[in-house]
Amino acid sequence: VNSTIETMMQHVSVRNFSATPLTKETKETLVRAAQSGSSSNFVQAYTLLDITDSAIRNELADISTCPAYVKKSGAFFMFIADLYRHATILESAGKPLDNIRTMESLIVAIVDTTIAAQSFVTAAESMGLGICYIGGIRNNMKRVAELLDLPPYTVPLFGMTVGKPVTRNEVKPRLPLKNVLGENTYNREQMTDMTEYDKITKAYYSSRQTNATNTTFSQKMVNFFKDVRRPDVGNFLKQQGFILK
Amino acid sequence: VNSTIETMMQHVSVRNFSATPLTKETKETLVRAAQSGSSSNFVQAYTLLDITDSAIRNELADISTCPAYVKKSGAFFMFIADLYRHATILESAGKPLDNIRTMESLIVAIVDTTIAAQSFVTAAESMGLGICYIGGIRNNMKRVAELLDLPPYTVPLFGMTVGKPVTRNEVKPRLPLKNVLGENTYNREQMTDMTEYDKITKAYYSSRQTNATNTTFSQKMVNFFKDVRRPDVGNFLKQQGFILK
Repeated sequence: VNSTIETMMQHVSVRNFSATPLTKETKETLVRAAQSGSSSNFVQAYTLLDITDSAIRNELADISTCPAYVKKSGAFFMFIADLYRHATILESAGKPLDNIRTMESLIVAIVDTTIAAQSFVTAAESMGLGICYIGGIRNNMKRVAELLDLPPYTVPLFGMTVGKPVTRNEVKPRLPLKNVLGENTYNREQMTDMTEYDKITKAYYSSRQTNATNTTFSQKMVNFFKDVRRPDVGNFLKQQGFILK
Repeated sequence: VNSTIETMMQHVSVRNFSATPLTKETKETLVRAAQSGSSSNFVQAYTLLDITDSAIRNELADISTCPAYVKKSGAFFMFIADLYRHATILESAGKPLDNIRTMESLIVAIVDTTIAAQSFVTAAESMGLGICYIGGIRNNMKRVAELLDLPPYTVPLFGMTVGKPVTRNEVKPRLPLKNVLGENTYNREQMTDMTEYDKITKAYYSSRQTNATNTTFSQKMVNFFKDVRRPDVGNFLKQQGFILK
């Protein structure tokens, strides 16, 4: 196992950063690394916004309900799934936008943006920086779109806080390989048998150094999916011009 | 710039592989690297299937219309966005599945699966292997789901072909930084001005060693979005139990 993979295996989401701003050079290296990944038919359907305005950043932090580490880190980026660029190209050529607006195009844009984000993450971590994905900005996508002046055919997918870690959590035990890796067809029993993982996670959650609790993966999932989360996502996507069917 | 980032910046999609199968150890290293990435609320909403059955692989290759390099490489994996595991946990606990079926949950699963995939890719490339994402399996998701015996609340998102490269394409020039990186708000003029990139891509496409053509990024996008692509994606997602609103 080489040093790239060793660093990846040490990944944790960092929630306590130094306030020292990243340099312009570091930011540009991270964005170029983000761009280096694959893109479906090379459409490159994403835009990154470097949030340097503290009023905007503070409101994004409040929306995300992760105030501390969204407000204080080396930088905060927004990752926007973006087909507006393509829409303007089509409009200039006098072509209809129907094929921009489809479920397939939306999936392409979400996948492209996430490929870029995870490349950004690996590059940051290879430089000794830490990151946390901030999906919490989807708590109020409409307001985020207003704040960032987003045009149609764009989706604020997640934020990313990045900087020097002050403290790091322990690496969490992942699902056992047998639960996430199958051969040829989906074996329902194999993929859903949580017996082993619930034991592993019970031991992990009860003994971890911070926030120790008596729970398991299964219990956490029951709790997590109990409440309605972000019921306005579909309406927001429609407002942005996508046809969800 | 360190060696991890250097390798990332050399990324190209590989479309010509050695047929030598990856070892079990290599495959497991790649899957563990895939699992090392972030996951929204640690739901880990993905499953990988290692397609070793040549009849299944050949049909997936035909569906994807990338027959050569899906059939012949070191391995072919399917990446499945997967909330079925969570659905069975909720069902065992006697809880309703409403919050599994939302647009938000579908986005979480697509993002989680893509984070895992791009981690898999970076690990593979750090080992000297090459990859190609195979979004073409979405040409017929219904048939792919039958072939792989996929349960509800799962989506075959893309395939991944991986192995030793026999030939490699040139690295393609990405969008200029100014078009994909903004500050604070979305500057429509800045993000959509393709003047510079169309010049760059015209030079690239006309002079590249294979498939030289007289075109630009803008022309390619007009051509790409001219045809309806994968109009059944929305219906398939509904069939799998998602409520797209």
